[in-house]
Amino acid sequence: MKILGIDPGLRLTGYGVIDCLGLKSNLIDGGVIRLDTKASIADRLVELETELEAIIAEHKPAACAVEQLYAHVTHPRTSILMGHARGVILLVARRNKLAVHEYAANRIKQAIAGHGHAAKVQMQRAVQLIWNLPEPPNPPDVADALAVALCCGHALTNPVGITKRTARRSPPRRI
Amino acid sequence: MKILGIDPGLRLTGYGVIDCLGLKSNLIDGGVIRLDTKASIADRLVELETELEAIIAEHKPAACAVEQLYAHVTHPRTSILMGHARGVILLVARRNKLAVHEYAANRIKQAIAGHGHAAKVQMQRAVQLIWNLPEPPNPPDVADALAVALCCGHALTNPVGITKRTARRSPPRRI
Repeated sequence: MKILGIDPGLRLTGYGVIDCLGLKSNLIDGGVIRLDTKASIADRLVELETELEAIIAEHKPAACAVEQLYAHVTHPRTSILMGHARGVILLVARRNKLAVHEYAANRIKQAIAGHGHAAKVQMQRAVQLIWNLPEPPNPPDVADALAVALCCGHALTNPVGITKRTARRSPPRRI
Repeated sequence: MKILGIDPGLRLTGYGVIDCLGLKSNLIDGGVIRLDTKASIADRLVELETELEAIIAEHKPAACAVEQLYAHVTHPRTSILMGHARGVILLVARRNKLAVHEYAANRIKQAIAGHGHAAKVQMQRAVQLIWNLPEPPNPPDVADALAVALCCGHALTNPVGITKRTARRSPPRRI
């Protein structure tokens, strides 16, 4: 089962495509969509849509995974801007008939690095180890996208495995 | 010049289409896009896109006007959700080659009701008077959408008129 993981942003949007069966997975593609920060938000969103459509057309994933909404009270403006990108991502995924799954940040970290409060560097290192990469994925947005894809893979194809314990702690909430 | 004003939301998105020449304007269309709150956010965004495309195809406006981003620190979650709808709106507008304009809330209120801190009811009443409507537009989302469209009309077709003074007070900021 092919899963597209996305880490939304109006500057950098990380993405990762993996092929998952139980706890085994192959990394198929990963990278960032770099948006022109001098362009208007509207133009950036059009660019984001175009790039996402191309990725989905190339890999034809069955599901799309993103981190669950989290309201950053300290950076409300940044969160709202991220919301713009996230909105376009959910739209494009759903329009292409992908199943959309959301996971809480600590559940993703738990699934990848073994504990729910892993730092960015630990997540990059864990992603490197899982897929035996020559170096940690950089920028960290790629690692985050691959991590949410893997978390989704575990949850969907191995419901009684790793994720069961964490699922009880932080069930996905519909908002 | 036809202008589409929009008041974004994931429950209700208000819209208004006006035809503007200087301080004169005709109200062409107005209403709300009511999204199914039981549906997932992704499904709601797809519905929002479909409805917006239909409105743009019907009226072929040259510009789209929305309220400038404002980070509500007290309701960060609501703001981020609104950001999802706003992102899809900006995307659809830009993809259809509409010019996208943003105006600060107090500038919109100033242009319609005469002062920058007008209450919702005053805005509804002002919109009713401007276009000689039998009653105030309801829900207020319609009035807000028509107000931002009119503010945009004033700014674009009458740059030395009403809006000059307010433009100096709150110039539009690119984010």
